[in-house]
Amino acid sequence: MFKGTSASAGIGIGKAVIVEETELKIKKDTITDVDAEKARFQRAVNQAMEETDALAKDLATRVGEKEAEILNGHLLLLSDPMLVGEIETSISGEMVNSEFAIETVCNTYADMFASMGDELMQQRATDMRDIKTRIQKILLGVSSVDIGALPAGSVIVARDLTPSMTAGINPANVTGIVTELGGKTSHSAILARALEIPAVVALDGIMSQIKDGTDLILDGSEGVVFADPDQAVREEYTAKRDAFLKEKKELEQYIGKPTVTKDGVTIELVANIGKPEDVDKVLHYDGEGVGLFRTEFLFMDRNSMPTEEEQFEAYRKVASAMNGKPVIIRTLDIGGDKEIPYMGLEKDENPFLGYRAIRFCLDRKDDVYRPQLRALLRASAFGNIRIMVPMVTCLEEYREAKALIEEIKKELDEASISYKKDIQVGIMVETAAASLMADAFAKEVDFFSIGTNDLTQYTMSVDRGNDKVSYLYSPLNPAVLRSISHVIECGRKEGIMVGMCGEAASDPMLIPLLLAFGLNEFSMSASAILNARKLITGYSTQELKEVAKQVMTFVTVKEVEDYMKDFISRS
Amino acid sequence: MFKGTSASAGIGIGKAVIVEETELKIKKDTITDVDAEKARFQRAVNQAMEETDALAKDLATRVGEKEAEILNGHLLLLSDPMLVGEIETSISGEMVNSEFAIETVCNTYADMFASMGDELMQQRATDMRDIKTRIQKILLGVSSVDIGALPAGSVIVARDLTPSMTAGINPANVTGIVTELGGKTSHSAILARALEIPAVVALDGIMSQIKDGTDLILDGSEGVVFADPDQAVREEYTAKRDAFLKEKKELEQYIGKPTVTKDGVTIELVANIGKPEDVDKVLHYDGEGVGLFRTEFLFMDRNSMPTEEEQFEAYRKVASAMNGKPVIIRTLDIGGDKEIPYMGLEKDENPFLGYRAIRFCLDRKDDVYRPQLRALLRASAFGNIRIMVPMVTCLEEYREAKALIEEIKKELDEASISYKKDIQVGIMVETAAASLMADAFAKEVDFFSIGTNDLTQYTMSVDRGNDKVSYLYSPLNPAVLRSISHVIECGRKEGIMVGMCGEAASDPMLIPLLLAFGLNEFSMSASAILNARKLITGYSTQELKEVAKQVMTFVTVKEVEDYMKDFISRS
Repeated sequence: MFKGTSASAGIGIGKAVIVEETELKIKKDTITDVDAEKARFQRAVNQAMEETDALAKDLATRVGEKEAEILNGHLLLLSDPMLVGEIETSISGEMVNSEFAIETVCNTYADMFASMGDELMQQRATDMRDIKTRIQKILLGVSSVDIGALPAGSVIVARDLTPSMTAGINPANVTGIVTELGGKTSHSAILARALEIPAVVALDGIMSQIKDGTDLILDGSEGVVFADPDQAVREEYTAKRDAFLKEKKELEQYIGKPTVTKDGVTIELVANIGKPEDVDKVLHYDGEGVGLFRTEFLFMDRNSMPTEEEQFEAYRKVASAMNGKPVIIRTLDIGGDKEIPYMGLEKDENPFLGYRAIRFCLDRKDDVYRPQLRALLRASAFGNIRIMVPMVTCLEEYREAKALIEEIKKELDEASISYKKDIQVGIMVETAAASLMADAFAKEVDFFSIGTNDLTQYTMSVDRGNDKVSYLYSPLNPAVLRSISHVIECGRKEGIMVGMCGEAASDPMLIPLLLAFGLNEFSMSASAILNARKLITGYSTQELKEVAKQVMTFVTVKEVEDYMKDFISRS
Repeated sequence: MFKGTSASAGIGIGKAVIVEETELKIKKDTITDVDAEKARFQRAVNQAMEETDALAKDLATRVGEKEAEILNGHLLLLSDPMLVGEIETSISGEMVNSEFAIETVCNTYADMFASMGDELMQQRATDMRDIKTRIQKILLGVSSVDIGALPAGSVIVARDLTPSMTAGINPANVTGIVTELGGKTSHSAILARALEIPAVVALDGIMSQIKDGTDLILDGSEGVVFADPDQAVREEYTAKRDAFLKEKKELEQYIGKPTVTKDGVTIELVANIGKPEDVDKVLHYDGEGVGLFRTEFLFMDRNSMPTEEEQFEAYRKVASAMNGKPVIIRTLDIGGDKEIPYMGLEKDENPFLGYRAIRFCLDRKDDVYRPQLRALLRASAFGNIRIMVPMVTCLEEYREAKALIEEIKKELDEASISYKKDIQVGIMVETAAASLMADAFAKEVDFFSIGTNDLTQYTMSVDRGNDKVSYLYSPLNPAVLRSISHVIECGRKEGIMVGMCGEAASDPMLIPLLLAFGLNEFSMSASAILNARKLITGYSTQELKEVAKQVMTFVTVKEVEDYMKDFISRS
């Protein structure tokens, strides 16, 4: 048995497929026809670019922007005139074959980057080696493991899932993923959860201990892997898997049921989406609306900004599909960890404390914010669209955005273009400042949506992507709970809707507390909705108030966790 | 008249000295004796390293760690075997002179870095060009402008102050600094304030509009510069300068006076220091103690950690010199924007939300934290030392630090080593979480010291070094004021001392509010103490309570600023 980190829930039972990048043997040959060799090199680069571009597009659609970003970085390197030029000079100057020229030049840069010490440079070194291998494989005619063609019942065992690998995974055939590297929030883990494949990561040295074809059982919820399990283990985990799948199946009875607590409080249970296509999944899982449409995805994986018309189409499509149910659309939230090359944003020294979201949009009204808001207003004629402003830190920012919306409304009136006249405009509450000023905001905005990921990050002053300080990153920390409870109280006092659209809204430990605080709306990934409905309909807010009262006396996260674990096991 | 950004207060009257880095002409020569040329190159590198090292040491002592850090980065590049090796290969392979080899190799790297796009890489490109020029100057025997030898009454006019320039400035001879680049918080500005030289920055294109030797008047408080001023302007500003100096002189009457408000509230007015030597300035300006000793300076500009013995000597020296007055020593606060190469810290993606201060120290108890705490405890036998833990985000961190202190106390008891048995242990309150949990912290710690720079940064989710979002960075923002007022209230309720050691403690706009909130201790740069005493002794806390009550009803920073400006002009 191997113990790793649980990364994606569920039980996987199948045969190990060791996915190893084979080491290429690069020989130095003397060439005679320089032009032919250069042409050969250029063809390989072109092919590498095409392949990378296709992978990036596929990844962005199926998995997410982060993975695709890395590949977009590779594209930049592949088209770097300096790098390509230096390799060509090496070919012509030293009369060597392309493989060897690439090897020398790319390694020089990669080593140099690696020696610089910091994380960013390490990433560049990795990127440089990745593209080196990709071109060399093309030149040598070596093909990568074709993950798309794995037989059913495969458990992928790899050092780490690279973007090139993950692009091809077919969830019907892959029953589990096991990696040596990674953590709960690593790319491999996020990918596995998105594909709903059980996964265990951070199993140091597993690749040398398991052979291709070994029988494997993994428990993605507990983070354990069994190799060549005996009959008893096999029976135990087959039963566990069946129970897991049965539970998933049983949740289907909550489709079509109202989300009302035992004491009659109606909750809005809605979904987070990134693209218009995601609406299918929302309807499938019976979401009561969209609580967060992350519009930045419309801006990614392209070379220029989407036009007002393109945006209008996307927003209209979602609004129409949701058929009158509320659709909260968040205006562009880029910067931070989300970069869009054509926007011309420089990388900040502290991206999460930098030039992002509304801070950026108010600076770029004419080319960025106005077209988006106009598209949103026009689309609002086709459904129940609400506009949500992200990363608001002071009232002035909200007022400026609101004034721009009013200005565009007038334009539309003059042009006799229809829109929802009483469209609601609200804010994400995700900075400590917005929480501290929630009473003032509540008097001016139409709704709040608490962004728990960022609120936790900013309240605890902790980068949620940084493993070294992850002990601080928990929405159950008393400081974060106080902030959340305060925001809800301020919103309810002014009679506005208060929702939550961070991952925490689906956390069974947090749901009872949020109900007690008086949260109106819970927004989560579509696949989490039915379980949340099951939980919410099982509680009475009145009895939860006692629980919350007790929890709010605690001063450490451990006290909160212990109490809530105990409460959940009892209820 | 030119309008720029005020960077350091005061009036400077003198003659312009244009400090321009001359462009070097690099010729390509064919050499015959490769070994001799390599030796010549190596000598120049060695000399460049010696010069850089000396500059870095001088800068760190006289100006600050930030400037020195850049030069330490240069040292790393100069000793990089890859870079040096590639230049030597170029000398021997192409039989060219060192100047040319350096030019080619360094430019290749610099261009590559520059093309990478992000800020960090831009900095590396600049560094690469800086060291290139330094070695070439040595080889060509070109000397830099010797800033140390400027005549009295010089006003330095430069594109920007580089670390190499600033190291030599003699404040007795330089009456003003004018630069094309920079902002209020740029290196040039911080340097000018540290040296108490009036300065105006961000004067785009000024170098082409002013000739060497031009008569200049600059008003560092207003951010204006006059070239060839007429008699009227000259008289006006001579009078202003005299008034400024007179006011500075008049503050001396506050030396030896107690810091007591009109209604009899005694305030502790103390200083921030970075090195034991700074105590002289504290005593000169009649500081009533040390409110913040930033111990990280003891760890900088060296190749290994200071031993417990070295630290003990430094802490003892300060404690003894302050002769029983309180000396609050902050334990190591590195990470964030402060890097120490030998500590083996990787650069975080968001350094300010990363692995810094107590987060780092608790992970490195044996080699880092224990020796420091032991040195502090031993030194506490020689004066009134208090221990302050920085960047505390949750109670567990404080409890763990406190437990370690208790453990060391026992060790000292067993070894019969004396220390202050009732030594106070407090925390910096600088994260939103610590502020939210201030009531709980106040029950366990001996004192609070509010770190306004970081508290503002974290509350407003804004990197204080990022110009693009600087509109959010103000301690007068209502959200920050609410947080400050809450922390003070919680501390006072439990009867513990609450101080403030950020720059805001000396801000005339903030002092009345802090007095009204009930702050006990104000810690600032030594040179600001007398002015603060003048202000504090002029107020009655009772009358200020009305002011604060009004201010706390405001919801935007502008309302606060306008009201406080008006109040100050009336009082």
